[in-house]
Amino acid sequence: MSEPTHETHNQHISQQFNQNLSELRNHFLAMGGLVQRQITDSVDALLNSDTSLAESVAATEKSVDEMERMIDEECTQIIARRQPAASDLRLVISTVKMISDLERIGDEAAKIAKMAIKLSDEGKAPRGYIEVRHISQRVTQMVSGSLDAFARLDANMALEIIREDSSVDAEYGSAIRSLMTFMMEDPRSISQVHNVLWVLRALERIGDHAANVAEYVIFMVKGEDVRHMKIAEAEQLISE
Amino acid sequence: MSEPTHETHNQHISQQFNQNLSELRNHFLAMGGLVQRQITDSVDALLNSDTSLAESVAATEKSVDEMERMIDEECTQIIARRQPAASDLRLVISTVKMISDLERIGDEAAKIAKMAIKLSDEGKAPRGYIEVRHISQRVTQMVSGSLDAFARLDANMALEIIREDSSVDAEYGSAIRSLMTFMMEDPRSISQVHNVLWVLRALERIGDHAANVAEYVIFMVKGEDVRHMKIAEAEQLISE
Repeated sequence: MSEPTHETHNQHISQQFNQNLSELRNHFLAMGGLVQRQITDSVDALLNSDTSLAESVAATEKSVDEMERMIDEECTQIIARRQPAASDLRLVISTVKMISDLERIGDEAAKIAKMAIKLSDEGKAPRGYIEVRHISQRVTQMVSGSLDAFARLDANMALEIIREDSSVDAEYGSAIRSLMTFMMEDPRSISQVHNVLWVLRALERIGDHAANVAEYVIFMVKGEDVRHMKIAEAEQLISE
Repeated sequence: MSEPTHETHNQHISQQFNQNLSELRNHFLAMGGLVQRQITDSVDALLNSDTSLAESVAATEKSVDEMERMIDEECTQIIARRQPAASDLRLVISTVKMISDLERIGDEAAKIAKMAIKLSDEGKAPRGYIEVRHISQRVTQMVSGSLDAFARLDANMALEIIREDSSVDAEYGSAIRSLMTFMMEDPRSISQVHNVLWVLRALERIGDHAANVAEYVIFMVKGEDVRHMKIAEAEQLISE
């Protein structure tokens, strides 16, 4: 066998680097899968008054926190050892940012799970559950869509999520207004309905975090920062 | 004059690097100063029904967004060009994370400013303003304390902020309960008091973000990740 040449050594380094990046991607998607599960579990727990399911969400929260810490450390190691440049560096920096959003999605799901326990203690399904079900389906799809957009590096798919976020915000606003009217008509319901309002708020924030992830996907793919940009401007940029 | 030696060349590089890091610190603190101003302005606008002050907060939001983008880019450049290691890399990565928290503090302040405009249209100062004033003073101090802890790299000061956050959360909880009772007694007030609840919620979240910044300061100084840790564990770690 021949001695390893300088070139094969470089190839080896670059293979290791690609493997590091591909592992990083997989870890990110695994963390995303966990928080997605947390959302569906916490909402199911609420709608079915299933307190033991609600309690399992709190347990998953620890794994999510652990994954965030692990991926943060992984990104720091990749930067320190591999000194990535250009699009590789964008991937690593974006991942550092996106896992904060994933972790916050997990936090919001944990809040919903706590409300599920509270509302189940109070008995009887209150108003607003139809809205919770509907908005939760939409934001869960947004989270899963933003993970898909990340996996496929698909900027158009990411843009779709950002568009969806405005539409969910509008639906959230109208749900809040109808629950407020209901509280005025039946003041005895205030405390219970109020808990449902917090749940809707948590869902709305989950949608915001999914949209943040989508913005970072666009940054990774296009190198363009579309945060704080009007949707039409972002569309223009991406179609270029 | 003598030729520049290899050593003076290295010194020159390292001076430039230190200057980069010190500029980064200053930019971070400047962004922090801006969002701190946004909080006080939005709360003053609310308490004094000052709509023009509330509108100025929206204008500041653009500058904050611009600074976030600029500092993000600055961090990427430092990593790509200077390949920082160890504590320097921790500073850069932590800054990338912390400016997301600062930007979100600005977002919450902007929401308070919007509520200020809404509540001023509805006339008459509603219930809960005493609580808003008090909690806003506490979270403003938390934000300014976390910036000081960053500037001085003071882990104990940062820990103080994290401790303060639990106490603010408790005060927030009791304010919410008293406003709920008030709504039940006077259902006509529901819509107005509800806007005050959102303001309190925004303030509580500002406190959370200040505590996040404090956690990153501890990470920068001690290299220890205290997120998701019980306060007693964090105290133990820092005193070591």
